[in-house]
Amino acid sequence: MAHGIGELDTPCVLIDLDRVMANIARAQAHADANGLKLRPHVKTHKLPQFAKLQVEAGAVGITVQKLGEAEVMAEAGLNDLFLPYNIVGPRKLARLQALNQRVSLAVTADSEATLAGYSATFADTGKPLRVFIECDTGGGRCGVPTPDRAVLLARKLIISPGLVFEGLMTYPPAGRLAQSELWLSDALELFDAAGIPVPAVSSGNSPDMWRLKGGVVTEARPGTYIYFDRYQVEKGAATFEDCALTVLATVVSRPNGTRAVLDAGSKTLSSDLLGLEGFGYIGDYPEAIIKSLSEEHAVVELPAASAYPRIGDTVRIIPNHACVVSNLFDAVHVVQGGAVIETLAVAARGRVD
Amino acid sequence: MAHGIGELDTPCVLIDLDRVMANIARAQAHADANGLKLRPHVKTHKLPQFAKLQVEAGAVGITVQKLGEAEVMAEAGLNDLFLPYNIVGPRKLARLQALNQRVSLAVTADSEATLAGYSATFADTGKPLRVFIECDTGGGRCGVPTPDRAVLLARKLIISPGLVFEGLMTYPPAGRLAQSELWLSDALELFDAAGIPVPAVSSGNSPDMWRLKGGVVTEARPGTYIYFDRYQVEKGAATFEDCALTVLATVVSRPNGTRAVLDAGSKTLSSDLLGLEGFGYIGDYPEAIIKSLSEEHAVVELPAASAYPRIGDTVRIIPNHACVVSNLFDAVHVVQGGAVIETLAVAARGRVD
Repeated sequence: MAHGIGELDTPCVLIDLDRVMANIARAQAHADANGLKLRPHVKTHKLPQFAKLQVEAGAVGITVQKLGEAEVMAEAGLNDLFLPYNIVGPRKLARLQALNQRVSLAVTADSEATLAGYSATFADTGKPLRVFIECDTGGGRCGVPTPDRAVLLARKLIISPGLVFEGLMTYPPAGRLAQSELWLSDALELFDAAGIPVPAVSSGNSPDMWRLKGGVVTEARPGTYIYFDRYQVEKGAATFEDCALTVLATVVSRPNGTRAVLDAGSKTLSSDLLGLEGFGYIGDYPEAIIKSLSEEHAVVELPAASAYPRIGDTVRIIPNHACVVSNLFDAVHVVQGGAVIETLAVAARGRVD
Repeated sequence: MAHGIGELDTPCVLIDLDRVMANIARAQAHADANGLKLRPHVKTHKLPQFAKLQVEAGAVGITVQKLGEAEVMAEAGLNDLFLPYNIVGPRKLARLQALNQRVSLAVTADSEATLAGYSATFADTGKPLRVFIECDTGGGRCGVPTPDRAVLLARKLIISPGLVFEGLMTYPPAGRLAQSELWLSDALELFDAAGIPVPAVSSGNSPDMWRLKGGVVTEARPGTYIYFDRYQVEKGAATFEDCALTVLATVVSRPNGTRAVLDAGSKTLSSDLLGLEGFGYIGDYPEAIIKSLSEEHAVVELPAASAYPRIGDTVRIIPNHACVVSNLFDAVHVVQGGAVIETLAVAARGRVD
């Protein structure tokens, strides 16, 4: 039953449903207009309900980052999952095999060791595992370091029993999409010369999504766009008015004219700075800086001495990074027109393995 | 039933029970030898089982940081709780009132507004609320800014129906205990001159606990000492051999000779740097640096090219900050002599309000 935001205890997470729907629609329209498949990363919301909204809007499936997230989403009825991760070790491979029987599933590999584990597990299951080669196009995390190595690993993949080569995948370096696309173009030329078809090229992240115009990349895996956050606004991917996730917090102390302390600390906002100054943006006090966090306190510095906000007042914070906030809450409140219309359990929260 | 650590899926949290017991005993012995009451902060472990071990060892009660944590601990049978927080707003005050009926409880206030809320709630309940005045002795978070203001607020407290003045409380500035104790000494002189008895003076944090020699402070609220962590080692409060909480992680990628990628990201270790270089200490690779985290990946830089650790190997990480790791896991594994002897649900995890 709908009730007012004022009836909620703080800190808590509010999700503006109208903004969620607008963000989903805008990303899908961009993907459609540019001939891209959209496969949203559900790590941002961790909610099967929102994953289904994304698929209903036209997404080809979803992206998950951990097996545990995949299991939650499969249980909820999502049936086309990409898990862009090297799945390693006998326990995880057994879970992966069970999952592959239930849904359409693809994973990544960036080494022969990972491929060997996949092949040993899937050689005799009757349903092969679909595998992308992960490429380090400049991000410096996982991935084969050069296009040549991508071809070498693909050759190995193709002759591995139980596996199917699905294409190339990268998490591009932030703000260097052109460099990433050049790397992938070079790779596609080598694959072409080697006579190996590349069914798909998948690239991640929300800020770069708007710059993807089809061509090299065939499938996009943005996550944060469903909520956006302060980092995305800083990167020009959205405005504060697009941000769908806010943290509702209460002022618990006003030690002096320029300091206010909120009941939302790193257990609520996380300590992610992402290169920004302060730990979030307070809509009603745009010049205020969330200067430091301890686990249960945020220390806010006001630009000039002021009696406001007063002790007991609530404020809404747009966090630096929405995804990590979702992981800190057992439930979020869906709001529309100033009323709470539903409270959703964050079903895939805390699925670390 | 006991089983091997090798049977655990990663990432996961291991708690070395022998180290926990040794850390509890050492802190209690220090408190006893220095005439201090010990009231451990349970935010570090969030486990009623360990809170009970601390009380059995001689602690006078426990400290909690949120009402939700207090409710979990009270439900588990802990009956002497200090909640050093300004509790604000009608919903929280109603919960506070219910809690005060069940257990021995004290809270803090640093403003007349907070006192007014307490008094309105507790004036007619029959069981008054015990209240400490929170003092900002240099930490720059909550608290009255000067000793004079502490006396003024205490005068107000004393005449407020339903409230009892319990003493002074501070979270001291890190590494500036002497400054904090000087502030408190000045305050005690003013209270003495005003003829107001101060029943207790409570001070927090683990690194400074070892430096407390009784005198001004009567009660200590260290939290992290039960596990310790990399930050505590850096501050000289412990050695790596004292650290009881480790994160078990698996190597999932070795893109080149000096880079290893682990399956433990900010969702496991948190992004807390606390002024340190890197996001944790890997016991088997002490010179390795956990250079960056994304949500599900740790990028580790090795000091020189090496084939080790290999893909599939597990490593144990001492995190920068143990408390925030406890908040990220639904359960932790208690280990003794290399075997997992018990898996405990982190009952007070995620209690943000």
